[in-house]
Amino acid sequence: MRTYKLTVAYDGTNYAGWQRQANAATVQQAMEEGFAPLVGGVAPTVAGASRTDAGVHAVGQVASVNAAIDLAPIAVLRAMNMRLPEDIRIIHADLATPGFHARIHAVAKTYRYRMFTSSVMPPLERRYAWHAPGRKHLDWMREAAAALLGRHDFASFQGRGAFVRATVRTLHGLDLEQRGDEIVLSIDGDGFLRHMVRTIAGTLAEVGAGARRPDEMTNILAARDRRAAGLTAPACGLTLVEVRYAKN
Amino acid sequence: MRTYKLTVAYDGTNYAGWQRQANAATVQQAMEEGFAPLVGGVAPTVAGASRTDAGVHAVGQVASVNAAIDLAPIAVLRAMNMRLPEDIRIIHADLATPGFHARIHAVAKTYRYRMFTSSVMPPLERRYAWHAPGRKHLDWMREAAAALLGRHDFASFQGRGAFVRATVRTLHGLDLEQRGDEIVLSIDGDGFLRHMVRTIAGTLAEVGAGARRPDEMTNILAARDRRAAGLTAPACGLTLVEVRYAKN
Repeated sequence: MRTYKLTVAYDGTNYAGWQRQANAATVQQAMEEGFAPLVGGVAPTVAGASRTDAGVHAVGQVASVNAAIDLAPIAVLRAMNMRLPEDIRIIHADLATPGFHARIHAVAKTYRYRMFTSSVMPPLERRYAWHAPGRKHLDWMREAAAALLGRHDFASFQGRGAFVRATVRTLHGLDLEQRGDEIVLSIDGDGFLRHMVRTIAGTLAEVGAGARRPDEMTNILAARDRRAAGLTAPACGLTLVEVRYAKN
Repeated sequence: MRTYKLTVAYDGTNYAGWQRQANAATVQQAMEEGFAPLVGGVAPTVAGASRTDAGVHAVGQVASVNAAIDLAPIAVLRAMNMRLPEDIRIIHADLATPGFHARIHAVAKTYRYRMFTSSVMPPLERRYAWHAPGRKHLDWMREAAAALLGRHDFASFQGRGAFVRATVRTLHGLDLEQRGDEIVLSIDGDGFLRHMVRTIAGTLAEVGAGARRPDEMTNILAARDRRAAGLTAPACGLTLVEVRYAKN
């Protein structure tokens, strides 16, 4: 029995998210079907570090899988990439310590959220960024973002329909960078609630547009109520960049 | 009668190129259908500076159109962007001198060709770049590119099936930049033959891989024979970046 650690990139546009579903194409399903021939046809469970939503992308998702095979990691990578659709690719494969689980053992993740503020959306970016036209005051957005750094109860930023009770998370970093008409939000933390990054991005966009004051963020956190925060920015702008582990 | 100068960006993936065809979706057709309602339903001819091939992208294509209307350029831009599919966008609109023709009056164009050399193609780049795996020696590619600068007969780089007799063109710039696993070729000239940028990109990739010597370029030019040059790199890696005019 070997445990493989697979680093995966995907264009989430055509998938109903990571997690296997009965009647929709998902990345987990594609991964399990890609792995199945290596173990004689019975698909093993491929566990993802993050259950990314429908339409969310990844350049560094991490998945783990246990299999009673003796293949070198590079052989697993090559065999899977031959079978996977071209919008999903294994970019690294390693052997992990037996018992390694991509989600349970993850200690930190980095996401990127991209928005374009130009009045016209560049068509080559439309699948991978949010069109949020209109001037955005980056200084106000940075001031608001700073209030979210550190350990807080993020219940106000948890999407409706999610029932996680332990809503305290720690954000290690939250950077905003302007690149021409694009604003890139990079966010690093020990864990994320459902829709948390997208709700932070949507709320910061409202601050940048002057629809909210930067100093509201403290009250939004204190409210522990989803209605206190701003809109949920669309999935297409979100990319899972990296998952980190204490050890393999 | 007004002449409009429209700067257009498009994702060429789903189009059979710029030029109108009987049985395929083209960018010119979409532009003309987008403009038609502004002039009462009869589509005028929208002339493009470059007849980009099937699958080729643009961030700065320029088109001209004459119409007996009195609309401000910004109104034309907004009306067209409401009707155009989301993979085509007017990014600027100006009034031009009567008689301005986007193709005939163009004095220079810039194209970009992107290739990824990593063994695995990043899925988020697959629509907009060529997967050319394997080490590429950038210094050899630059030496080969330098031989193409200036005024030459580029008949060896003209795609088969093209019958342009005047094959002398001037390249003003030809730069190669490495960005991680990506090599970006930027090429600037007074005009380009059919498949010329893609054949230059394909030939330079062969030089970079060691399959050709950099000093072969002079002989390739002298041959004036398509068989002397290398492969035609795929359309998806090519983007029309800018078209320049002496005046509007």
